[in-house]
Amino acid sequence: MPTEARFKRVLVANRGEIAVRIIRACHQLGLETVAIYSSADKGALHTLLATHCLCIGPAAAKDSYLNINAILEAAKLTAADAIHPGYGFLAERAGFARAVTEAGLVFLGPDADTIATMGDKVSAIKSIKAVGIPTLPGSDGALNDDMNAVEALATDIGYPVLIKASAGGGGRGMRRVDSADELASAIALTRSEALAAFGDNTVYLEKFLTHPRHIEFQMLADGEAALCLGERDCSAQRRHQKLIEEAPALGIAREKIREMADICEAACRRLGYRGVGTFEFLYQDGAFFFIEMNTRIQVEHTVTEMVTGLDLIAWQLKVALGHPLPPRPQVQGHAIECRINAEAPQSQLPSPGVITQLRVPGGPGVRWDSYLFPGAMVPAFYDSLIGKLICHGVTREEATARLRQALTELEIQGIAINKSLHLQLIACDAFQPWQRDIHFVDALSAPGVGQAHL
Amino acid sequence: MPTEARFKRVLVANRGEIAVRIIRACHQLGLETVAIYSSADKGALHTLLATHCLCIGPAAAKDSYLNINAILEAAKLTAADAIHPGYGFLAERAGFARAVTEAGLVFLGPDADTIATMGDKVSAIKSIKAVGIPTLPGSDGALNDDMNAVEALATDIGYPVLIKASAGGGGRGMRRVDSADELASAIALTRSEALAAFGDNTVYLEKFLTHPRHIEFQMLADGEAALCLGERDCSAQRRHQKLIEEAPALGIAREKIREMADICEAACRRLGYRGVGTFEFLYQDGAFFFIEMNTRIQVEHTVTEMVTGLDLIAWQLKVALGHPLPPRPQVQGHAIECRINAEAPQSQLPSPGVITQLRVPGGPGVRWDSYLFPGAMVPAFYDSLIGKLICHGVTREEATARLRQALTELEIQGIAINKSLHLQLIACDAFQPWQRDIHFVDALSAPGVGQAHL
Repeated sequence: MPTEARFKRVLVANRGEIAVRIIRACHQLGLETVAIYSSADKGALHTLLATHCLCIGPAAAKDSYLNINAILEAAKLTAADAIHPGYGFLAERAGFARAVTEAGLVFLGPDADTIATMGDKVSAIKSIKAVGIPTLPGSDGALNDDMNAVEALATDIGYPVLIKASAGGGGRGMRRVDSADELASAIALTRSEALAAFGDNTVYLEKFLTHPRHIEFQMLADGEAALCLGERDCSAQRRHQKLIEEAPALGIAREKIREMADICEAACRRLGYRGVGTFEFLYQDGAFFFIEMNTRIQVEHTVTEMVTGLDLIAWQLKVALGHPLPPRPQVQGHAIECRINAEAPQSQLPSPGVITQLRVPGGPGVRWDSYLFPGAMVPAFYDSLIGKLICHGVTREEATARLRQALTELEIQGIAINKSLHLQLIACDAFQPWQRDIHFVDALSAPGVGQAHL
Repeated sequence: MPTEARFKRVLVANRGEIAVRIIRACHQLGLETVAIYSSADKGALHTLLATHCLCIGPAAAKDSYLNINAILEAAKLTAADAIHPGYGFLAERAGFARAVTEAGLVFLGPDADTIATMGDKVSAIKSIKAVGIPTLPGSDGALNDDMNAVEALATDIGYPVLIKASAGGGGRGMRRVDSADELASAIALTRSEALAAFGDNTVYLEKFLTHPRHIEFQMLADGEAALCLGERDCSAQRRHQKLIEEAPALGIAREKIREMADICEAACRRLGYRGVGTFEFLYQDGAFFFIEMNTRIQVEHTVTEMVTGLDLIAWQLKVALGHPLPPRPQVQGHAIECRINAEAPQSQLPSPGVITQLRVPGGPGVRWDSYLFPGAMVPAFYDSLIGKLICHGVTREEATARLRQALTELEIQGIAINKSLHLQLIACDAFQPWQRDIHFVDALSAPGVGQAHL
């Protein structure tokens, strides 16, 4: 570590549980913190825990948590010398990273060019292929208007194929095509939807996997050296939104996992990657196919922390302060995270409100990351994630038993939460790693397939 | 594991955080639970979490949590087939263990004879010496009235020596003697005090250690095999009451620790010990001296859980169900526990009341074992321990940094707690393992030695 720290006061450009999480890590390392908040988050936990806090705008995210000028102004006012973007909001906006750096502050993430490359699906896949990471067979870039060539490619890859908007993500802007006669209309539809939703009608084509698992690899790198901290299985998704994540990913040969970890480390070194990041893959029938890289800390970093014993946010800060990477950790036991959302169980609509009662589980192997406390407000303006319940055990069975008990104990009044969904998911047969794919949650709730239970 | 479980429904003969802890472990193993409560604990967390609950008497412990007949009647009414005594209350009453067994129920602890032997200091030391555990040089049993022989013994051992009541414990019933001319009066005084306090004037003499650390070894045994799950340092005591415990014990040669662990395992095997138990030692200048054996789960079992990954209550249950012992665990990192008491910071008097606000810390490596929730009652009738804050880290430094942040975050309104004492203790020089002895907390608050800070 350099004798003079590169930064001493971190502005956390986020809210909710991740802002709380980052503030805790900073304080444990002796760093001061600045919390920013919108008027909807007055009195929120992250503002109470930080060294300093300041309101930077009204409730609408575009005027507060997405307001780059206001955030830079806040950093200036409070003499913060680094900015942590968390996840969501501005975390993967290359322009924000650039503006932070140009203001003379440390941006706690990779450089703006890397964020820009990985934020665009077409350039990301091109870049990732170049550093040796396996990708889905596909169009190798944007589709042009030569439909004969596109049809030949699809036939070559084999149906089903997927048409995806380059600017899409999180399940939006994609369409499955099962035969050649659907191809042209699917491309046209996806283009027009992408133009409307993202202002960009670029689309590409790739192989569609019928029963993949979502497996991702957690990376930590310092621009030269790179370390893979293991994999996570995030196949428990509802309409492409992750619900439950775990580490390690069981039911996949460990040699295959190690091989991918090596490939990911080599890729980070070749990219000159800096900070934490995640390579996301689909896995089917023994093969991994890259889908995207997240150039930030992820919601589900916690399960990796529980099995490695490493504090990923602390390491993100330490690497930025010039520390060498930690030694390669041993994976110990199994960890599972449930995302607790403020949502109505049936409609799944957001459920904002004031917390009137809160009973949090505890005991061995139980971790609760949240911004809630009795009297806290869950605003209507942001993500519905209000907490993460993470359980660790010597075995997956023990972690699951702890999760079941902890979910049962968790009591939150004043808002509705998705606790019963989690209890049902962890109890169902398809929750076993070797039986699941990324569609298993949606399949459970599909008409006629047990909708009554979900 | 036998095909038919020896028990399926556990009555928890306790209250507070340990009752909650035991109920969680039972449920995770698929066992049902019965909570008992006094009228002062109506609506307490352990009654809310258990499968069934029933009131067994009024607030006074002698009429409820110490009322053996009422507890056995409750077990009968609810068809419980095992009883877990927790710690305190009836946990080390041989008569209770015997009554439970005679009622045809499983007692989750060692047999009554072992409890009786270890509960009496003179017989405990005799028994422990016989199985090879090092003890303090002393009178090898009760002192008789031959003062010439007693004086010769004290001279032989070397002053200072300690006169201790056989029925004493927890710092009560002991007196230091620095020279021969104080000896007779010290014995007479200790005898009369012991008769008044415990109804038994038996006293013995042993070497007094001037600057010992309190180090204890956690055991798990099944009547034949025995496993030492590592040691704990519990030197942070206030008037012989443990305040902060940690694992492992730093500043002691690891070979010496391993040697003691082997001795403790051999002793358990020779004793035919069954269940969890702890050998407590004083450690000074490279040598260990046995002080007592606790034949039950201890408050501070949590730090051993955090560094071994093993759930000690679950293993206590599993061993009683006939499972073989777990493999020897690797110690991972460092864990520290602060006992959070409901007490006034200055007077240290109990501070009962209703919890009006509760903000609990979270994040990686933070564990909170408590019976509190907003609206919960802390009764005036029992122990002031309301929760245990346990932090784990890769290093002792990281565990301490997490503890500092977590203590800072912990907010409890409606009662007073000893949070500031803990924050001051973990910040002081004497908190370093290699600087401490069991007197360090009291020395900090002694007149003229920084009383203002504690």
